[in-house]
Amino acid sequence: MYRTHNCGELRLENAGKEVTLSGWVQKKRDFGGMTFIDLRDRYGITQLVFNMDDNANLCENARKLGREFVITAKGKVRERSNKNPNMPTGNVEIEITSMNVLNKSETPPFTIEEETDGGEDLRMAYRYLDLRRDSLQKNIIFRSNLAIEARKYLAELDFIEVETPCLIKSTPEGARDFVVPSRMNKGQFYALPQSPQTFKQLLMVAGFDKYFQIVKCFRDEDLRADRQPEFTQIDCEMSFVTQEQILNTFEGLTKHLFKTVLNIEFQDFPRMFYDDAMRLYGNDKPDLRFGMEFVEMNDVAKDKGFVVFDKTELVVGVCAPGAASFTRKELDKLVKWVQRPQIGAKGLVYVKCNEDGSFKSTVDKFFDQDMLKAWAEKFDAKPGDLLLVMAGETDKARKQLSELRLHMGDLLGLRKKEDFKPLWVIDFPLLEWDEESNRFHAMHHPFTSPKKEEIGRMLNGDHETMKSLKADAYDLVINGNEIGGGSIRIHDRELQSKNFDLLGFTKEEAQAQFGFLMGAFEYGAPPHGGIAFGFDRLCSVMAGEEGRIRDFIAFPKNNQGRDIMIDAPSPIDPDQLVELSLDLNIRG
Amino acid sequence: MYRTHNCGELRLENAGKEVTLSGWVQKKRDFGGMTFIDLRDRYGITQLVFNMDDNANLCENARKLGREFVITAKGKVRERSNKNPNMPTGNVEIEITSMNVLNKSETPPFTIEEETDGGEDLRMAYRYLDLRRDSLQKNIIFRSNLAIEARKYLAELDFIEVETPCLIKSTPEGARDFVVPSRMNKGQFYALPQSPQTFKQLLMVAGFDKYFQIVKCFRDEDLRADRQPEFTQIDCEMSFVTQEQILNTFEGLTKHLFKTVLNIEFQDFPRMFYDDAMRLYGNDKPDLRFGMEFVEMNDVAKDKGFVVFDKTELVVGVCAPGAASFTRKELDKLVKWVQRPQIGAKGLVYVKCNEDGSFKSTVDKFFDQDMLKAWAEKFDAKPGDLLLVMAGETDKARKQLSELRLHMGDLLGLRKKEDFKPLWVIDFPLLEWDEESNRFHAMHHPFTSPKKEEIGRMLNGDHETMKSLKADAYDLVINGNEIGGGSIRIHDRELQSKNFDLLGFTKEEAQAQFGFLMGAFEYGAPPHGGIAFGFDRLCSVMAGEEGRIRDFIAFPKNNQGRDIMIDAPSPIDPDQLVELSLDLNIRG
Repeated sequence: MYRTHNCGELRLENAGKEVTLSGWVQKKRDFGGMTFIDLRDRYGITQLVFNMDDNANLCENARKLGREFVITAKGKVRERSNKNPNMPTGNVEIEITSMNVLNKSETPPFTIEEETDGGEDLRMAYRYLDLRRDSLQKNIIFRSNLAIEARKYLAELDFIEVETPCLIKSTPEGARDFVVPSRMNKGQFYALPQSPQTFKQLLMVAGFDKYFQIVKCFRDEDLRADRQPEFTQIDCEMSFVTQEQILNTFEGLTKHLFKTVLNIEFQDFPRMFYDDAMRLYGNDKPDLRFGMEFVEMNDVAKDKGFVVFDKTELVVGVCAPGAASFTRKELDKLVKWVQRPQIGAKGLVYVKCNEDGSFKSTVDKFFDQDMLKAWAEKFDAKPGDLLLVMAGETDKARKQLSELRLHMGDLLGLRKKEDFKPLWVIDFPLLEWDEESNRFHAMHHPFTSPKKEEIGRMLNGDHETMKSLKADAYDLVINGNEIGGGSIRIHDRELQSKNFDLLGFTKEEAQAQFGFLMGAFEYGAPPHGGIAFGFDRLCSVMAGEEGRIRDFIAFPKNNQGRDIMIDAPSPIDPDQLVELSLDLNIRG
Repeated sequence: MYRTHNCGELRLENAGKEVTLSGWVQKKRDFGGMTFIDLRDRYGITQLVFNMDDNANLCENARKLGREFVITAKGKVRERSNKNPNMPTGNVEIEITSMNVLNKSETPPFTIEEETDGGEDLRMAYRYLDLRRDSLQKNIIFRSNLAIEARKYLAELDFIEVETPCLIKSTPEGARDFVVPSRMNKGQFYALPQSPQTFKQLLMVAGFDKYFQIVKCFRDEDLRADRQPEFTQIDCEMSFVTQEQILNTFEGLTKHLFKTVLNIEFQDFPRMFYDDAMRLYGNDKPDLRFGMEFVEMNDVAKDKGFVVFDKTELVVGVCAPGAASFTRKELDKLVKWVQRPQIGAKGLVYVKCNEDGSFKSTVDKFFDQDMLKAWAEKFDAKPGDLLLVMAGETDKARKQLSELRLHMGDLLGLRKKEDFKPLWVIDFPLLEWDEESNRFHAMHHPFTSPKKEEIGRMLNGDHETMKSLKADAYDLVINGNEIGGGSIRIHDRELQSKNFDLLGFTKEEAQAQFGFLMGAFEYGAPPHGGIAFGFDRLCSVMAGEEGRIRDFIAFPKNNQGRDIMIDAPSPIDPDQLVELSLDLNIRG
C-alpha cells in the first residue's frame, strides 16, 4: 500500500498516528540536524521531518532527494512547533521512520510554482508539468465540479443525457467542418460536428422530450486566443415548451451552478430585448457590471453648426462617472485609442463636467455652456463626470462607443472580477442581411423559429420585411460574455423550407443537406427549442478568468491548432493515404 | 403552455382536475358516440375521450387525427369505467373539451409498436421514428441512468472527470486510426483517439491522482455486428495504487451500478487467474452462469489404442448435465456443429452416462465400460449426464471446446438473461507471440506493467522467458462478455523502453510515437494504473440484451460504417479538398 492518507488531510487530532504518505517533493530545507520536505499531491502539502540524530542514514537519503522526486514515506504525525496557519495541514508534521523513492525526476525545465519562469511555449510542451501548478489543478477540478453540478441539476429535471454521433455529414453552412476520410466508403468523408443541432432536434421528433449532453464539438476556423478547434458545449433541448419556459429552466441551471460552485446568489436576472441592448450598449452582450448606458443625442447635438454631427446619422455618448479628473494627456490617449484601426473611429468629443458646474469640451466653439448643460442633463451627469460622445453611421458609432464604454469600465475599475451580472438578451432578429455576399444569413442558425406573431409576415412579406423579423432566439450573457445561446426551433416543414429559401438554399441543396430533418418534420415533430452553453467559456468566466479558456482545458491546442506536447497534427504513413484513396497535393 | 402534466403521471387522485396534455396519437378507436385516443409521450400513455353528444365538432376533429399526429388537448380527469391495470395511468381518462393539432404526420413507413413490420434498413433510415418505440426509448434512458450512476459513484470517491483531446496524433500500433486532415498544417493529419490511454497516464504524471471520463473513442476497423466505429468508454486511472485497490474500486462501481439500476446484489465476485480461465473454460472471458468446467483427460484417454487421442497434445472434455437424453439426431447435429469451419474441429467424442449406470460412447471400440467409468468419475458425472470430449493441439482444442460449452449452455437453457455472474480474470500474460508477424504483441497494450516479481526476468530473460511473463493486467467479465480491462502501467522509463524493444519498436519509432510519454516519465511519474469499461457493451449486457449494442446507441452506424439516416459519409465539395491540400485517388 502506497499511502494511508493523502497529503491534504492530516490535522492536529491525528497526532500520534502512524501514517504512510506518497507524493512529490515540492521543497526541501536542510538544517544542521534536520531535513524538512514539503510533500505534495492533488489534495495538499504535508511537511515531513527527517532527524539526523535518530536516523542518520535516512536523513542522508532525504538530503539526496531532488524537486519532483516521487516518494513514499512512513512515520508518526506530531504537532508542529512552528505552525503554518496558511496551510490546512499546517499544524502537523510527520516524523519519518522509513522512506522509499518511487521515481526520480530530472530537474524540470521550469519551476513548478505559481510564479513560474517558464514561457507559454515551454509550458505547453511540458503540459503535464504545467498541470502540476496549483492554479491549473484548481481550474481543472473546478471544471469537473461544474460538469457534475450541471448534470445533477438537469437529471433532477428529467433531462436524459444522450450521446449523438461524432462522425456525421459535412454541411457547407456556417464555419468550416473538420472532415474524416472513410476507408470503407472510398472518396467519401465524415465530418466532425460543429454542434449536435440536427440530432437533438431529431431526438425531440423521436419523443425524448428533454435532452442534454456535455459534448465535444469541432470547428476548423482560424484561431484566436479564446477559440479552440475542439470545444465543449452543454447542449440542451426540450419539447412542448415556450421561450419563457426555456429561459426559466436555464436561468435555474445558471443559478444552481453559481450557488453550488461559487456560493453566489443572484439578486437579479434581467431580460433585455436585442434592440434595447444595441441601443443602450451598442452590443448584443452588454456587460452589466457597470452602467454608462448610451444616450442618443441627435436632438441636442445636431443643427448647431458642428458639421461632423450635422451630416451624421447618429450622435451618441456615455457618461463616465468621476472621470472629469482625467488629465489632458489621458484624454488625448483616449482619443488615440478610439482612432486605432481596431476601433476605427474618426474622433471623440468629450465634455468635462467640472465641480463648479461649468463645462469644458472639445467642441466649445459650437456648443455654449447652456447647450452643454442640456447635454449633461440628458446624461443625468454629475459634477466630476466625463461625457464621451461619438458620431457616425448608427451601427458603426454604436460598435465604437461600445468598445470605448468597456475600455472606460476597465480604466475606472468598474469590471470587477468578483462581480457577476447575468442577463438574457431576447428577441434577436431572425435574419441578417450580408452586403458582401448579397444574401441573408441566419442570425442564430437556420432552424430558428420566427416569433409566432411574425410567421405571417415571414411567409408573405417583402425583402425589407425580412430584415425586421424577430425570432424566439435568446442569449445568456454574463459580464459581457456570451455564455449560451438558443432558440425555439421551426417544427413545420413549410416554414423550414421558406427559411432555407430566404437563406439562399436551392431546393436541391436543402434536400441534400437537411433532407433527413425535413423528412422528420413530416412525421409529427413536436414544438421544441433549446440552448447550448459554451462550457469552456463558462468555466473561465465563472472562475473570474475570462478570456483564459486554455487554462481550463487539460490539453489545449495553440494558435496554429497544434498540440505541441504530442506534436500533432503530423504527417501520416503513405500506406495510410493509399488505404484512404488520398494523395497529398500541397500547392504553393 | 403546452401541458400541465405529462402523459404518464395522472392517477385516480387527480380525478376532477382540469389538465392539458400534449403528445402523439398512438391509437384511435371510434365508437358510436365516442372516440378514444391513446396519447403518448416519453413518460407514458393517457386515454383521451371525445364525446359526440357533448361536442360533435370536437369529436369530428378527433376522428380526423391520424397515427403520430401531435396534439395538445385540454379536459377534465375522470375515473375510467373500464380500467386497464397494465398501465400506470389505467385508472383514469381525460374528458376532452378542446384540442389543437400541433403537427400532422404522414403515415409512418412502419408501425411504431413493439412488434414492428419495419426491416432493419428501413428502421435505420427512419431512426427518429424507430426511437419512438418503447423498447428503444427504454434502452436510451437506461443508458443515461447508467452514466448518471457511474458518475455519482466515481465523484463520490474524488475522481475528477477530465476531458482529453479528440484531435490527437496517429500511431500505427493496434487498430487503424481515423485521421483528420489539417487545413492549417498542410500535409499533416490529426487522428481520432482509439482511447485516451496516453493522456490519462499524463494526467497521473500531472498529479490528478484519480481521473475518469465517459468518452467517445474511434476505431477504423471492419465492422462486426457488435462493433461500431465510434464507441464509448468509461475510462479511469488512479495513482499510488496496487492491482488489488483497483479491483476493489471497480468491483465497487460494478456493484453500485447493478444495485442502483437493476436492484441486483452480487453474492459473489470471484477472481480467476488467466491460466485457470484458459484451463477450465478455454477462454479468457468465461461465462460463469453455468458450470461445465473442462476436465483434462490425457491420463485416462491416451495410450488406449485410439490413435486420434494418442497422437494429440490434449484430450479435454466437459460434462453436460442431463444431456444423456439427447437423441442420436441431436448428437449428430452437435458433431456437425463443431465441424463447421467457424469451429473447425475434426470431430467430437461423446459418452452417455445411462440411468442404469452403463455408458454408451462413440469410442466403445477402444474404451470398455470400466475405462468409461473412470472417465465419468473424473468428471464427477451423474447418470443422465453427457460427456463431450475433444482432442487436439492444446490452444485449439480448448478454443473449440469453449465454443461447444457455450453452445451446450444455450441448448440446455443455462445462460439465463436474468442471471448475472461477474468475474475478474487476472494475471494476463504481458506479451503474446505472433507467429505470422514473427514478433511479440502486447496482450493488453504497450504500457502494461509486468508483475513486480517478473521485472527481473523481463530485463534479463531470454526469448522463451518473455512468453511466460505475467502482467498486472485484468479484465472484468460478466456472463462471458469482456466488460472492462485494465492494468497497472509501467512508470519507469527504462522498463518502458525495454517493453518497446520487445514489441519490435526501434528507438526512433518509440521516440516519434511515444516520446512525450517517455519524456514525462523522466519527471517524477507516480506508480499508476487503471481500467476502461466498454460502455455500449455494459449497457447491452446489463439490460440482458448482449450482442445488441446498436439498440443502446441513439444513432448507430451500420455494418458498412454508414449512417443511413443522414447519408454519411458522403462526397465533399472539391473546394474543401483544395483547402485541405488533398486529391482523391480512387484506385481500382
